Amino acid sequence: MSAQKTLELFATGPKVINLGLPSFADDLRRSGAEVLHVDWRPPAGGDPHLLHALESLQGSDGGVLPEIATANEEAVSRLLAAKPMLVGLGKASELIEGMHAKHILHAGPPVSWQRMSGPTRGAVMGALVFEGLAETPEQAATLAASGEIEFSPCHHHQAVGPMAGVISASMSVWIVENTAFGNRAYCTLNEGLGKVLRYGAFGDEVMQRLRWMECVLAPALSQALTRAGSLDLRSLIAQALQMGDEGHNRNRAATSLVIRALAPHLIHVDLPKEEIEAVLRFIDSNDHFFLNLSMPACKAALDPCRGIKDSTMVVAMARNGTDFGVQLASMPDRWFTAPAPLVEGLYLPGFSAADAAPDIGDSVITETAGIGGFAMAAAPAIVQFVGGNASQALSFTRKMLDITLAEHSTYKIPALDFHGTPVGIDVMRVVESGVVPVVNTGIAHHEPGIGMVGAGLVKPPIACFEQALTAFCEHKEQSR
Amino acid sequence: MSAQKTLELFATGPKVINLGLPSFADDLRRSGAEVLHVDWRPPAGGDPHLLHALESLQGSDGGVLPEIATANEEAVSRLLAAKPMLVGLGKASELIEGMHAKHILHAGPPVSWQRMSGPTRGAVMGALVFEGLAETPEQAATLAASGEIEFSPCHHHQAVGPMAGVISASMSVWIVENTAFGNRAYCTLNEGLGKVLRYGAFGDEVMQRLRWMECVLAPALSQALTRAGSLDLRSLIAQALQMGDEGHNRNRAATSLVIRALAPHLIHVDLPKEEIEAVLRFIDSNDHFFLNLSMPACKAALDPCRGIKDSTMVVAMARNGTDFGVQLASMPDRWFTAPAPLVEGLYLPGFSAADAAPDIGDSVITETAGIGGFAMAAAPAIVQFVGGNASQALSFTRKMLDITLAEHSTYKIPALDFHGTPVGIDVMRVVESGVVPVVNTGIAHHEPGIGMVGAGLVKPPIACFEQALTAFCEHKEQSR
Repeated sequence: MSAQKTLELFATGPKVINLGLPSFADDLRRSGAEVLHVDWRPPAGGDPHLLHALESLQGSDGGVLPEIATANEEAVSRLLAAKPMLVGLGKASELIEGMHAKHILHAGPPVSWQRMSGPTRGAVMGALVFEGLAETPEQAATLAASGEIEFSPCHHHQAVGPMAGVISASMSVWIVENTAFGNRAYCTLNEGLGKVLRYGAFGDEVMQRLRWMECVLAPALSQALTRAGSLDLRSLIAQALQMGDEGHNRNRAATSLVIRALAPHLIHVDLPKEEIEAVLRFIDSNDHFFLNLSMPACKAALDPCRGIKDSTMVVAMARNGTDFGVQLASMPDRWFTAPAPLVEGLYLPGFSAADAAPDIGDSVITETAGIGGFAMAAAPAIVQFVGGNASQALSFTRKMLDITLAEHSTYKIPALDFHGTPVGIDVMRVVESGVVPVVNTGIAHHEPGIGMVGAGLVKPPIACFEQALTAFCEHKEQSR
Repeated sequence: MSAQKTLELFATGPKVINLGLPSFADDLRRSGAEVLHVDWRPPAGGDPHLLHALESLQGSDGGVLPEIATANEEAVSRLLAAKPMLVGLGKASELIEGMHAKHILHAGPPVSWQRMSGPTRGAVMGALVFEGLAETPEQAATLAASGEIEFSPCHHHQAVGPMAGVISASMSVWIVENTAFGNRAYCTLNEGLGKVLRYGAFGDEVMQRLRWMECVLAPALSQALTRAGSLDLRSLIAQALQMGDEGHNRNRAATSLVIRALAPHLIHVDLPKEEIEAVLRFIDSNDHFFLNLSMPACKAALDPCRGIKDSTMVVAMARNGTDFGVQLASMPDRWFTAPAPLVEGLYLPGFSAADAAPDIGDSVITETAGIGGFAMAAAPAIVQFVGGNASQALSFTRKMLDITLAEHSTYKIPALDFHGTPVGIDVMRVVESGVVPVVNTGIAHHEPGIGMVGAGLVKPPIACFEQALTAFCEHKEQSR
């Protein structure tokens, strides 16, 4: 530094750019210096193993290896080409491969009864009573623990389920077909909020509702849908994103659009007028009704990306209240798991964070397909449900551009001047940046039998993505 | 300037702040100077008469006279206390005072047949054929010109009408009751877009639709509404603003919510299933269906503010395709008019600005009540219909804070962190700032018989507001 510069420094004081730890900037600010703080973190948190893994995937030009780039282009182009159509409704036992009377599907990666979270246990107990395999929840718990019941993830059976995500043989499921690729995805019908099976409740109210859903709701919707032909879910989601929905925890617009589409057909359903009215009122009373359609729409869109060699794109994120799991396009049969985190959120009256189960449900398939938390800029009103403010909703969406492969070609956000939602999570970008997907979600009580206690935002554990990256590198090394 | 400063100026060049005419700034920029342009205009455009008028309304402290401040507080508090409820449906002849077989109501301020715009003439001709008073549009035109038909503004009869706004005796009208004050407002049912009476079309298609609306649609809706009790329009509008509507030219969400609310009751209507289906399909095919409910909701909310002495709040803006008119709370029976301006917008295929009639319709009652253009920040997707981009939608709403008395206590905008919409246009602020209300609107063909050609944004003529201010001052002077 020249003498002149040094003199200037004494006269005008230093101007500081601080990288990394914010506490340095705070100290300087306290002593009156002008500080610009840059929220910088070293790539991959500075972890030498992960840095080595990321480097091993780079070509000589510093970009990603050409075969990975090509594979990811293929993956994201399949995802964007998806055309999920709602084509019908039927019994799980008749539609889902491998389904049998003593088989229970659940959300998230595989988990034994012994390790199952409270809400998943509660939903399993309720389902066993509902199926007539047990008379009381206590008997159901004994049966579940006996080894007689087969448990497996919805994701292993072309299905998804919100929260506990329990599907048993005689439950009705939506049939969503991705007509661009011919694959299907299944999901149960949404029961509403509060004391419901998917949040782990299993009381009489829950059982009665489930029975009514099978006897009245499902047949009515099935008839109406048969008359309507099919519903274009991609188009409905695209419209709903222009009407303040984000497709995960705000589905008021899409639910309204489904009512608009089905009401003219429900009139003709072969049921007493009172029962048709009850069907319409049930849907009208539950703005989450569409969640159980947006989820299989996203699942159906992502499944054709499974098995693309060399792709680092995430094809599933899912939680069971015990573990958070991630699957990659190139290794679609492996789960990379870490303990499910707690959700930061808003609680229903009478409940607090002390009541909350860890993160749970397959609904994070919406974020995996570029909506939900990734589309929060489209749904600023959701902050009243999950917390935060409207400008955060915008910044959440923008931040997800750091870890995704594309902007969605159909799902656009008016408030971002019709840019597409960030879509196609790249595990390399997640690990390199340390930015994890933003997920909004419901919160279940940690005990079986209680139900919903709130909703909020959750950060998936980065360990899942780090494991996936490490495994991807090993797999790539071995297949050389 | 010191010698030192002068030397600095030569060394570093000037830094200029330019106020007013942008061309000075452009010239300086061209010669390489750093210029900050400030879009400043002298108050009231520098007009000495208007400046004098504004000064005469100021107290000794420089603020507005206390009696005016109090009157405006009363006006805006009545507006915000409004509770517009949809309570029924009936024939204009039975509901609207002064309605008779040869009486035609139209949008905007009073206008004679001779001065009527093409679309208003077209709608009048269609209405006379619809009423059976003429067999052909040509006969209708002769009858209309004969002096046998009484014409008056909807606004003189507690009614509002979109575009031409024509109401004839046997048309059905919605009944909206402001239950906080007991007053009512009426509006016809929305016909859809394209070739429709309110855009001045009168062909067979238009007549058949109007007849079907009277024979099937109105009775079905009336029965359903009777069964439902009533619909809280304030609540529906508040919800729709959180779902991408602004209540004037984007009503997709509110239309959906009305379908949700009425479908369970429509099922029970005493009509064949096919006709009930046709009713649901008609509403579903027309996202502007709710416009004819948001308009009387706004009219019913504003009318209790009529007759508040000393208030400078605007209680009506309206156009008939010939004149744009404004009414004030303190002089509610007077219209302050200027030629209706042209609309800047987007045109339907096959049409251009050369086809456009000047600004027309009572629908600007929405902006008068703080929604429509004033709530565009809630509806960024509307720019695809009326032009512009999403950030303009935000700035339109923000700009309206300059000319309004309050933020709405019920109509909130998520994207502005749940701030209320700007509401209660103060004619003093409009004249002082030169900022006119932002209005979005449909565009009719200038010839009778054709219909809709586009949609866009329009600037009301400031002359209406200037006249209103001058008249207010004179009135105040006289009543001293």
